Amino acid sequence: MAGNSIGQFFRITTFGESHGSALGGIIDGVPPSLPLTEKDLQYDLDRRRPGSSRYTSQRSELDTVEILSGVFNGKTTGTSIGLIIKNTDHRPQDYEKIKNLYRPGHADYTYEKKYGFRDYRGGGRSSARETAVRVAAGAVAKKYLFNRKNIKIRGFLAQMGDVHCNLKDWRQVDNNPFFCPDIEQLTALDTLINNLQKSGDSIGAKITIIAENIPIGLGEPVFDRLDADLAHALMSINAVKGVEIGDGFSVITKRGSEHRDEMTLDGFDSNNAGGILGGISNGQPIIMHIAIKPTSSITVPGKTITRENEETHVVTIGRHDPCIGIRVVPIAEAMVAIVVMDHLLRQRAQCEKI
Amino acid sequence: MAGNSIGQFFRITTFGESHGSALGGIIDGVPPSLPLTEKDLQYDLDRRRPGSSRYTSQRSELDTVEILSGVFNGKTTGTSIGLIIKNTDHRPQDYEKIKNLYRPGHADYTYEKKYGFRDYRGGGRSSARETAVRVAAGAVAKKYLFNRKNIKIRGFLAQMGDVHCNLKDWRQVDNNPFFCPDIEQLTALDTLINNLQKSGDSIGAKITIIAENIPIGLGEPVFDRLDADLAHALMSINAVKGVEIGDGFSVITKRGSEHRDEMTLDGFDSNNAGGILGGISNGQPIIMHIAIKPTSSITVPGKTITRENEETHVVTIGRHDPCIGIRVVPIAEAMVAIVVMDHLLRQRAQCEKI
Amino acid sequence: MAGNSIGQFFRITTFGESHGSALGGIIDGVPPSLPLTEKDLQYDLDRRRPGSSRYTSQRSELDTVEILSGVFNGKTTGTSIGLIIKNTDHRPQDYEKIKNLYRPGHADYTYEKKYGFRDYRGGGRSSARETAVRVAAGAVAKKYLFNRKNIKIRGFLAQMGDVHCNLKDWRQVDNNPFFCPDIEQLTALDTLINNLQKSGDSIGAKITIIAENIPIGLGEPVFDRLDADLAHALMSINAVKGVEIGDGFSVITKRGSEHRDEMTLDGFDSNNAGGILGGISNGQPIIMHIAIKPTSSITVPGKTITRENEETHVVTIGRHDPCIGIRVVPIAEAMVAIVVMDHLLRQRAQCEKI
Amino acid sequence: MAGNSIGQFFRITTFGESHGSALGGIIDGVPPSLPLTEKDLQYDLDRRRPGSSRYTSQRSELDTVEILSGVFNGKTTGTSIGLIIKNTDHRPQDYEKIKNLYRPGHADYTYEKKYGFRDYRGGGRSSARETAVRVAAGAVAKKYLFNRKNIKIRGFLAQMGDVHCNLKDWRQVDNNPFFCPDIEQLTALDTLINNLQKSGDSIGAKITIIAENIPIGLGEPVFDRLDADLAHALMSINAVKGVEIGDGFSVITKRGSEHRDEMTLDGFDSNNAGGILGGISNGQPIIMHIAIKPTSSITVPGKTITRENEETHVVTIGRHDPCIGIRVVPIAEAMVAIVVMDHLLRQRAQCEKI
Repeated sequence: MAGNSIGQFFRITTFGESHGSALGGIIDGVPPSLPLTEKDLQYDLDRRRPGSSRYTSQRSELDTVEILSGVFNGKTTGTSIGLIIKNTDHRPQDYEKIKNLYRPGHADYTYEKKYGFRDYRGGGRSSARETAVRVAAGAVAKKYLFNRKNIKIRGFLAQMGDVHCNLKDWRQVDNNPFFCPDIEQLTALDTLINNLQKSGDSIGAKITIIAENIPIGLGEPVFDRLDADLAHALMSINAVKGVEIGDGFSVITKRGSEHRDEMTLDGFDSNNAGGILGGISNGQPIIMHIAIKPTSSITVPGKTITRENEETHVVTIGRHDPCIGIRVVPIAEAMVAIVVMDHLLRQRAQCEKI
Repeated sequence: MAGNSIGQFFRITTFGESHGSALGGIIDGVPPSLPLTEKDLQYDLDRRRPGSSRYTSQRSELDTVEILSGVFNGKTTGTSIGLIIKNTDHRPQDYEKIKNLYRPGHADYTYEKKYGFRDYRGGGRSSARETAVRVAAGAVAKKYLFNRKNIKIRGFLAQMGDVHCNLKDWRQVDNNPFFCPDIEQLTALDTLINNLQKSGDSIGAKITIIAENIPIGLGEPVFDRLDADLAHALMSINAVKGVEIGDGFSVITKRGSEHRDEMTLDGFDSNNAGGILGGISNGQPIIMHIAIKPTSSITVPGKTITRENEETHVVTIGRHDPCIGIRVVPIAEAMVAIVVMDHLLRQRAQCEKI
Repeated sequence: MAGNSIGQFFRITTFGESHGSALGGIIDGVPPSLPLTEKDLQYDLDRRRPGSSRYTSQRSELDTVEILSGVFNGKTTGTSIGLIIKNTDHRPQDYEKIKNLYRPGHADYTYEKKYGFRDYRGGGRSSARETAVRVAAGAVAKKYLFNRKNIKIRGFLAQMGDVHCNLKDWRQVDNNPFFCPDIEQLTALDTLINNLQKSGDSIGAKITIIAENIPIGLGEPVFDRLDADLAHALMSINAVKGVEIGDGFSVITKRGSEHRDEMTLDGFDSNNAGGILGGISNGQPIIMHIAIKPTSSITVPGKTITRENEETHVVTIGRHDPCIGIRVVPIAEAMVAIVVMDHLLRQRAQCEKI
Repeated sequence: MAGNSIGQFFRITTFGESHGSALGGIIDGVPPSLPLTEKDLQYDLDRRRPGSSRYTSQRSELDTVEILSGVFNGKTTGTSIGLIIKNTDHRPQDYEKIKNLYRPGHADYTYEKKYGFRDYRGGGRSSARETAVRVAAGAVAKKYLFNRKNIKIRGFLAQMGDVHCNLKDWRQVDNNPFFCPDIEQLTALDTLINNLQKSGDSIGAKITIIAENIPIGLGEPVFDRLDADLAHALMSINAVKGVEIGDGFSVITKRGSEHRDEMTLDGFDSNNAGGILGGISNGQPIIMHIAIKPTSSITVPGKTITRENEETHVVTIGRHDPCIGIRVVPIAEAMVAIVVMDHLLRQRAQCEKI
C-alpha cells in the first residue's frame, strides 16, 4: 500500500490501468521557474509508445499527455504537477477470455490472491502501460538535470538474445527501432525478431543506461545510497530481473588490485565502480545494466489453471512485443532521472553545494 | 539526508562509525508480544562478526548488543526498540596515515567531496562495521517471521572467484567459516584465501539468499514491488554491485516459452521468476543473488592522490578481509528479513489476509 | 516540497489550481473490495461546493468528480485511485487586476517570495478550491470507516461571530445552509451574513467535529499520536488558526481532579480528554474544535503594496464567501476521516486487532 | 507504528521508557560542519529536567546526554547523530501498585488495549520523560538556526490557572523556575503552586512560543503547511490539548477587515496571522500558543477500574509536577526548532534561496 510513489523530495505518484479510461500521475517537488510544456514530455513518450514500428505491439495509443497543473505562463510554479494520458485504443473485451485463468509469467495469479479479485483487462495495474506516466515524469527530471546541470541520462540496447550491441555511436540509438548504438547489428536484430514473430515466441534483453556529468556527492550513507535507490527504481520496472552497477556480476572473479579504480591527478584510471563509491557519486559516468525477461505474452500455448482450479492452456492473442526490452530504454532513462533528481535536491538541502 | 532509515511500517534507523564509541539503531513498528532477548540478536551478530576465523579480518569486536527499550518482561511492547553495540577494539590511530589521502575503491573521496570533510577513522560511517546494526535489527524480523509464519530466510556463498559452491546441504552452511553449502569445495576456498593472503590481494564473491514459506501477496504494484524493495535493500549493503531475482541476467538469452513458469494443479512447474510475479510474491521460494566486489583494502600498493592534490601510493595495513563476501551472508539475510517483514505488515494493513 | 501528500498507509496526493483546467488527486492504500462509485464521492462534494446557497460564493462549479482508476466492476481493486474534477467556471481574467499586488491576508506575497513568481489566478494552489479533492478522498475513507466499522465522522457550525450554535440535533445540520445543529439560531446567522454582505466584510467561525465508534487503540506513541495527526490534518485546511482536542484551551484553568476522566465499570465518567489518552483513542467520541479566520477577500478596501514596491489599495471583487467557516464542515470531516483511516490501517498492520 | 519519527529531511527518531535503562534517539539530515558538543545539548536539557526547583517533580535525573556518532573533531559530519541519555533515578518498584489498574487521565488503559499488555513502570513510553530526547535533538536544530540564520525560538509561560503572565521581559524567562517573563506575577505563581501542593491537585497552563527572524518562504502548499507541521509537532507533546497560530481562537469573532494584516512599504501593519500566510512564513515572527492540561498524577483519590474489571481508587504517590506546563517550555521550543529546521532544508532543496 502506498506503493505508487517514488522519491522523497522529487516524488512521483501514479495511477491507471491498462484498459481503464486514463493513466496519470502527480509530480511533487519540482523546482519553480523551469520552462515546461507538454512537448517536453511528449518526446520521450513517443520513444516509448507501442505501435511505432513493426517490431513492437500494434496497440495504437497516441499517449498524448496533458499537464493539468503546476505550470503557469510556460514555467513550473513549484506546486504539484498533475498529468493525464487518456487511453484511446483500449479494448477490454479482448480480455474476457482470460478473466477466469492465470496467464503464466504474468501477475494475474498474484494480484488475485493478494487482493481477492483483479482487474483482468490487460493486466490492469500490472501492465507495462503504467510506465507511460513514469516516462512523462522522468522527462521533467531530465529537462531540469540537463538544463541546469548539463546532466545527460541515456540508454541503449546492449544485448537481445545472443546479439550483442556495443556502444559504437550514441547518435544511432534513436535512429533505429531497437535503440541500438551499433548499426552493424541491425540486421541480426531484425532477423531475431522476425524469427520470434514466426514462432510466436519472445526473447530477453539487456539495457545499459549511462548518466554523465553527475556532480560528485549525490547519494546518502547506508540505506539511501545512490546505487541502492537506482537498483530500486530500475527493478521496479516491469520485467526487470537484474540490476548491475559498473562491473556488476563480473566482480565475482576479480581481484581487488584489478577492480579498484586508482586515482592520479588526471582523475580515475578506470571506472569499474560505475561512478559510485560508498553509495555516493564520484563524478565519473554512472553505468547501469538491467536484464529484462522475455514477455510471457506469446502465442506458444502454455499450461495454466483457472480460478475454479481446473487445468487449461493459454495462448496470448492480444497485441504484444516480441522483445519488451526494446521499449524499456526510455523507461529506464526516466527512472534514473527521477532518482538523480531526488538526490540532487537532497544534496542541495543538506550540503548546499549544488 | 534522512538516508539512515529503511522500511515504511517496520522501519530501521541506524547510527555509528567504525571507530566511534558505539553503533546503534532503532527498530520501529515491531508487533507487540514477541518474546525477545538479546540472545536472539546475538546469534546472527556472531555469524557476522570479524575475527571469528583466520579467513576474516582480525579486528576483535565482541559485537555485544544491548536492548535499551521496547522490551518488557521478555516481550516486545510495540514501542520502538533501541539497540546499542559498543565499539571495543577501535584503533583510530591506525588511520592517521590515511587521513590526508583517498584510498582507491573506498568512499574517502566521495564523503569528503560531499560533506566538505570526513571522519577518516576506518572509513567512518562508510565502513562495513555499520552492518552490525542491520544484522541485529534483521534478527528481530527473522524471529517474528519464523515464529509466526514459519518463514525461513537463509543465504550461502555461491561463488568466490572461480570456485562455485552448489546448494548441496543447508546444514553445512554454518559449519564452515565460508558459509559454503558444498563441503567438497572447502579445500578450494581455503587455498584461494591462502593465496590471496600471500599476495596481499582480495577477491569478489556471489551470495545467494533464499526466502521460503513466503505468503502469496507480499509486494505492492508499481514502485514498491517486493523485488524492487529487495533490490534496494541488497544493493544498500557495502560492496554489492549487482542484484538478481530468479533467473536474473540469464533471462537475456531466454525465450518466453522457456522462462515463464507454467502452472498445473500441482503448482508452478518451475521457479524461473524467483518467487515474484508482477512485484508480488507467488508463494514459491524467493531466490536472490548478489555480487560482492573484492575489497579495496589490500596490501598491493595502489596509486592515489592526497587532499592537497599530490600523487601518492597507498598500502592498506589495517585488519581486513581477503573476501568480504563471506561475511555478507548474515547481512543479506537481515536485509531480506527487514523487507519481507515490512511487506507482511503492509499486506496485513491493506488486505487483512495475513 | 513533496508537501502535497498526507497519510502513511492511506495516502492522499493532490494537484490543481483554482483557475487551472482541473483539480485531482490519487488515493493510495485503499483496501480492496470496497463498493465505490462516483456518487459516493459526490455527496460530500455537493455539501462543500460553492454557489449552493446565497450565503456562499456564487462561483458556480459543479464539482463533478470522475474516478479514473482503482475501481473495477464497482469495487475498489486495491490499486491507486485517480480522481479528477474539472474546473468549469474558472475566470482567470478576473484576476488580471491583482497580478501585480499582494492581497492582504492572502498567500500572494508568500508564494511569490517562496517560488520567485506565482500563479495569480484566484490564488492558484493556495485557493480553498483545492479542498474539493480532499473532500472526494475523504469520502472514500468515510465510506470504508462507516461500512466496515460503523464509524461516524460528523461536523457542525459551533459558532459564527458571536452566534453560538449548540449541538441540539444532528439531523438539522444538513437541513440548512449553515451546517447549524440549532434551528433557533438560523435567524441570527441569516442576519449576521446579511449584515456582512451589506458592509462588504467577513467573519470567523468555529467548527466542531465528532468522530464516533472509533475503536480503542488508534494512534502511535510519541510523534504520530492520533491527536497530533488530527491537528496536522485540520490545521492544513485553509484559514484554520487553531485546533483543540476535547477541553482544549479551557484546560488552562482546570484542576487535575476536574479534568481527568475517572473510570467505573460503566466506562468513563466524562470525556474531557476528547476521546484520546496518550495519543491513542480510548473508545469515547473524539471531539475536535477548529477556529477559522474571516476571509480576507472583502470589499472593504485594504492597504497593500505592489510587486514594484508601491503602496496601493485593494478591493476584492471576485466571488467570495462572507464566512468561509460554513463550507469548512465537510472539509474538516474529510481530513478527520483520512487520519482515522490511516491509523486504522496502521493499527491493523502492527497489532492485528482491528 | 513507525510513529517514533518526525521530519522529512531533518528527521528525529527516538526510543526509551520512563524507567528503562536509557532514552535515546537518532538525528538524521544534519548539515555537515556545524560545531557541536554535548554541552550545546545539555543547556536545554537542564532547563527541562525535573528536580531543578521545588515547583517540579523531585525525580532527580541528571539527564546527561552522550553523542555517540555523527560528530568528529567537534563538528557534525553529515551522518546520523546517535544520542543516549541514561536513566539513573528510575524506581520501577514505585509502580508495582499501579500495574493492575488504569490511572485516570493517563495512557495506561489505551496502551494496554492497543498492544495487549503494557510497560507499567511510570507510564513506560507514554511518560513525558521521553521528551528529554526531543529537547536534545531540538538543541541541534536551534544551534544551526541561530548560528547560520540568526533564528531565535523562545517560549514562556503565558498563563497558569488564572494567573496571566505578559511578555514584559524575555530576559526574565530563564531567571525564575516558571519560565515567566513577568516578574510581577512570580508571587501569584508561587502561591498557586503552594496551594496545589497542599491540596494534592494540579493545574493547566498556556505556553507561548515565538520564532523570530524566520526567512520568508518556509512551508509547503496544502498538507505540509508550516502551521500544519507546527500543530503536529506541538500537539505531539504530552498533555497538549490545543494549538493556536497567531490570533488563534479569537478569530471566531473577528471581521476580515480587522484580522487581515495590511501592508505598507514599512511592512505589515500587524501580525494577526502569526507570521504565516497560506501555510508559508511571511517573515514576521511566528507566534504559537499551546494549552497544557493539568497532570492527572495527583494525590486526590480518583475512581478507576482494574485490569480484572473491578472498581477501585487510585492515589498517585510517585514524584510529579503540580503544573507540568512549566517544563513544557523547552520542549515546545525544541519541537518548533525541529519543524523550522526541516522546512529550511526543504526550501533550500526546492528553491535554492536559503
